[in-house]
Amino acid sequence: MRKIEHIGIAVADLEKSSALFARLLGKEHFKTELVEGEGVETSFFQLGETKVELLQATREDSPIAKYIDRKSEGVHHIAFDVEDIQAEVERLKAEGFEILNETPKLGADNKLVVFLHPRSTNGVLVELCQEIS
Amino acid sequence: MRKIEHIGIAVADLEKSSALFARLLGKEHFKTELVEGEGVETSFFQLGETKVELLQATREDSPIAKYIDRKSEGVHHIAFDVEDIQAEVERLKAEGFEILNETPKLGADNKLVVFLHPRSTNGVLVELCQEIS
Repeated sequence: MRKIEHIGIAVADLEKSSALFARLLGKEHFKTELVEGEGVETSFFQLGETKVELLQATREDSPIAKYIDRKSEGVHHIAFDVEDIQAEVERLKAEGFEILNETPKLGADNKLVVFLHPRSTNGVLVELCQEIS
Repeated sequence: MRKIEHIGIAVADLEKSSALFARLLGKEHFKTELVEGEGVETSFFQLGETKVELLQATREDSPIAKYIDRKSEGVHHIAFDVEDIQAEVERLKAEGFEILNETPKLGADNKLVVFLHPRSTNGVLVELCQEIS
């Protein structure tokens, strides 16, 4: 793992939260993006080499809708940048981590993504992501 | 705010979790540090320009003990690196954010730190930190 690619934060109202994070971080978001497969609309802020990704559900069965229902708004996942996602999946499986999707799927921001179950990672939902070249 | 300085993760057993994160990140922690004032023992991993800080309570009234009791292990706070913490506190107060300690206090890793209440930041406990020169 090379760096923290982004921190994903579950929000109920993307427009309101984008304005709030613009005030907090002292800068505007650089894009919004709809990820149909995950049922989320996202808003991205760049801060040094890491991004803050706000996520709002676009439908009731979205993982973000379920997360907010069960817990509340807040940090949803931590995403780590990897060079070779398939190799990392194999390495982490061998180390005993629980992989949620062994086949990488298309995430936001031109990335292939894999999630690890938080019960194998101290309650942290971990995302691996590899930039699609 | 210049970059994400670290991500703080509440853990029940620092030794066990340090070993787990070493396997996850593929590298060893670079230090442990006791922060008496906060009642926490910490373990730090460097990943690019950001750190992962694991926090274990050293006493029952530690904020980390209360956090784990109320919620569970997981992401506890996000810390942002700032150049002038007092100026950032003034700016954020003017923006309507709720500051938990207006006078910066001594945190881990040679930092002055200020926390913002999560109810003003979408459920995220935000830490500002300035390196002590």
